[in-house]
Amino acid sequence: MTAVLDTQVPPPAGVRDGAFGNATHLVCRACGEKSPLGPFYACMECFGPLEVGYDFPRVTREQIESGPKSIWRYAPLLPVPADIATFRSTDPGFTRLVDAGNLAADLGVRKLWVKDDSGNPTHSFKDRVVAVALSAARELGLNVLACPSTGNLANAVAAAAARAGIRSVVMVPSNLEQQKIIASAVYDTTLIAIDGNYDDVNKLASEIAGEEEGWAFVNVNVRPYYAEGSKTLAFEIAEQLGWRLPDQVVVPVASGSQLTKIDKGFSELIKLGLVEDKPVKIFGAQATGCSPIVQAYEAGHDVVAPVRPNTIAKSLAIGNPADGPYVLDVVRRTGGRIADVDDETVVRNIVRLARNEGIFAETAGGVTLGVTARLLAEGDLDPDAETVFINSGDGLKTLDAVASHVGPKTTIPPRYEAFTDFWRSYTA
Amino acid sequence: MTAVLDTQVPPPAGVRDGAFGNATHLVCRACGEKSPLGPFYACMECFGPLEVGYDFPRVTREQIESGPKSIWRYAPLLPVPADIATFRSTDPGFTRLVDAGNLAADLGVRKLWVKDDSGNPTHSFKDRVVAVALSAARELGLNVLACPSTGNLANAVAAAAARAGIRSVVMVPSNLEQQKIIASAVYDTTLIAIDGNYDDVNKLASEIAGEEEGWAFVNVNVRPYYAEGSKTLAFEIAEQLGWRLPDQVVVPVASGSQLTKIDKGFSELIKLGLVEDKPVKIFGAQATGCSPIVQAYEAGHDVVAPVRPNTIAKSLAIGNPADGPYVLDVVRRTGGRIADVDDETVVRNIVRLARNEGIFAETAGGVTLGVTARLLAEGDLDPDAETVFINSGDGLKTLDAVASHVGPKTTIPPRYEAFTDFWRSYTA
Ligand SMILES: Cc1ncc(COP(=O)(O)O)c(C=O)c1O
Ligand SMILES: Cc1ncc(COP(=O)(O)O)c(C=O)c1O
Ligand SMILES: [Zn+2]
Ligand SMILES: [Zn+2]
Repeated sequence: MTAVLDTQVPPPAGVRDGAFGNATHLVCRACGEKSPLGPFYACMECFGPLEVGYDFPRVTREQIESGPKSIWRYAPLLPVPADIATFRSTDPGFTRLVDAGNLAADLGVRKLWVKDDSGNPTHSFKDRVVAVALSAARELGLNVLACPSTGNLANAVAAAAARAGIRSVVMVPSNLEQQKIIASAVYDTTLIAIDGNYDDVNKLASEIAGEEEGWAFVNVNVRPYYAEGSKTLAFEIAEQLGWRLPDQVVVPVASGSQLTKIDKGFSELIKLGLVEDKPVKIFGAQATGCSPIVQAYEAGHDVVAPVRPNTIAKSLAIGNPADGPYVLDVVRRTGGRIADVDDETVVRNIVRLARNEGIFAETAGGVTLGVTARLLAEGDLDPDAETVFINSGDGLKTLDAVASHVGPKTTIPPRYEAFTDFWRSYTA
Repeated sequence: MTAVLDTQVPPPAGVRDGAFGNATHLVCRACGEKSPLGPFYACMECFGPLEVGYDFPRVTREQIESGPKSIWRYAPLLPVPADIATFRSTDPGFTRLVDAGNLAADLGVRKLWVKDDSGNPTHSFKDRVVAVALSAARELGLNVLACPSTGNLANAVAAAAARAGIRSVVMVPSNLEQQKIIASAVYDTTLIAIDGNYDDVNKLASEIAGEEEGWAFVNVNVRPYYAEGSKTLAFEIAEQLGWRLPDQVVVPVASGSQLTKIDKGFSELIKLGLVEDKPVKIFGAQATGCSPIVQAYEAGHDVVAPVRPNTIAKSLAIGNPADGPYVLDVVRRTGGRIADVDDETVVRNIVRLARNEGIFAETAGGVTLGVTARLLAEGDLDPDAETVFINSGDGLKTLDAVASHVGPKTTIPPRYEAFTDFWRSYTA
């Protein structure tokens, strides 16, 4: 097969013309070997992970700006058909980029932005990746949308499948936050709780993907397409800054997919001439209780040794991260770093973000802000450079993390004197 | 005072020029008497509720379309200064208008849209009204942002005040959903739990507003400004439909403010020539356990007798609705109706919306969809007319309502045979 696969790799029979837009092939991130656009995710030569390659036409800012107010404005840069906006999806993206002036002052940085993905349809960045994976599943004729998930992905898959009118199966660790379980089950998905941690769930999903016909495990066998969805975070940041790149970005890391694709997104904008070329340092954030990539980074390793997760940041609790080596590559190549904070710091930083900017993040956001503060204190982040951090999820899904730390200041009967008594002592 | 107050009513001393944009005065909804733009909410002649009056300049579609992707694109139609977007707010609005084809088929209607306000910063429409109230408070020199709340308003006030860097005090019934309490307290607001129902909390707030200096109770003493924020729902629906009006709209009703302002918003668009004139029927939705306006409607009354609420739709549990008579007026005048559904129907319709469209609503959304279905069945809503219903809140805030109705289909160990055993019997 290797001989026939040059630049233009013909898609498998049955896939319609333009099914993947300007994407032309899959390419191995390990050995560079090409594969056709199909339900493939591992290199036939070396079993390395595949990623989508393109032959981009000229794309202009005006063209993008006149598109829909969702990730589909970037359709020409994604492996989706040109008419993608006509299909039923949750139409995620184009979330707020918040000018975080209070937080900047609190942290002592010149300019800080929060890319707030809690505004997505199911309130995490996962709606982005799922929307692209759903398109790929449809074009490839797969009819079950599935995933192993630490929670947010399950919410996003269940919602997207409901709207698209296709079957879904989502698999989660049975000890997951009740919020994320109910917020998936409500979409009438086939929710399977697994007695094990995420890595156990993921392994089971890979087995099923290998055995069953017609299943699209969004983050397993259609992962190359899925992952491209995270590039839209980079696209939106650049567009919302007025078509320019920030200096430094801090990104939460579980499997590492989002971080590597934000880097890829910036590169593509530069290649397409949509922004001026400049270096962007990429920083990663993990919870100390699940920081396998941090450990590899600090040991100077290129591969990541799996760990057993133990942290309140359950959405980031992947002990065996699929994109671990690529995260190491990106943070080293761009002059960034990956660091961790403990669970107590996570909670403190959820409250810090809420109090300063009126944004209620889930534990992943607490991790990312906590690591931002740490990297500033340790001199890795430049306080004079323009910084963006990704708030990838929503505080309503991890209430337990803060429930014992915040609450009413008082409980009183509905009488004016009861109020004045409280207020006088409270403001004294 | 009545003699000097003609069309242009001078604002109180200390209020800067343009503080309220194109708004020129307050006007009594009961007797038509005018008052100056100030911290006033009750008519000096008859104690009737005040509403904002304008002298609109020419406003074009292009002007609006080139504005920010938030409610501030409609700044010329709101009582806010022209430079409003430069102030720190949560910048709510411009949420999705979802083409709900699956649900339309399920309900047997030709064309159905969901205006999905769960995408707002604190995941309810209350971010809209609070953003406008915050602006008024700032311009009037009030320095405590406060509210009595059934939950969502508390979330929105606490978040907006945090971002604006001003003090907030939010008062809620002590039996409120834990989610809404934590999701307010996290912003470090002064959260006061009151042993009583919402109407008790509201009465206490009115007393405090009358006694304390410098407090902006968003829905009490700055209510005229606050209420204008809900017009943006009408503006967005019209713009998102391509600058035209739908035939029928179904709106959840607690105090009734949102419903009356959606009607006002449509009228203003017509007056300004931004859409073609056409009738829009406005329908209201309440939970049976708190349906004082439905009772008045059915009895043919013009005034609303208070009730004691008992429903899972806590965000709509206002037994003594401030805008009750105006809701009756709007639904009667436009040819709409106000109806109710019981709690079991509410839960069923939360699941129905989720399963069909991938949208997870709070109880208020279940009420609104349930009433939509009922009004269709009873022939009040025309199945051939274009219909919009408002999803004003988020399911993550009322998980308890569905927690016992949805969940995992199974819990299994992480082994392939365990999966196939389940799957075989499940799909048999
Ligand atoms: C809220 C949130 N943030 C970040 C991540 C990390 O994503 P990735 O696996 O792409 O590193 C996840 C993954 O589940 C998540 O749920
Ligand atoms: C989710 C939700 N929908 C609708 C309403 C009704 O608003 P109004 O008081 O304007 O009738 C409320 C009020 O609290 C609410 O929280
Ligand atoms: Zn390879
Ligand atoms: Zn009057």
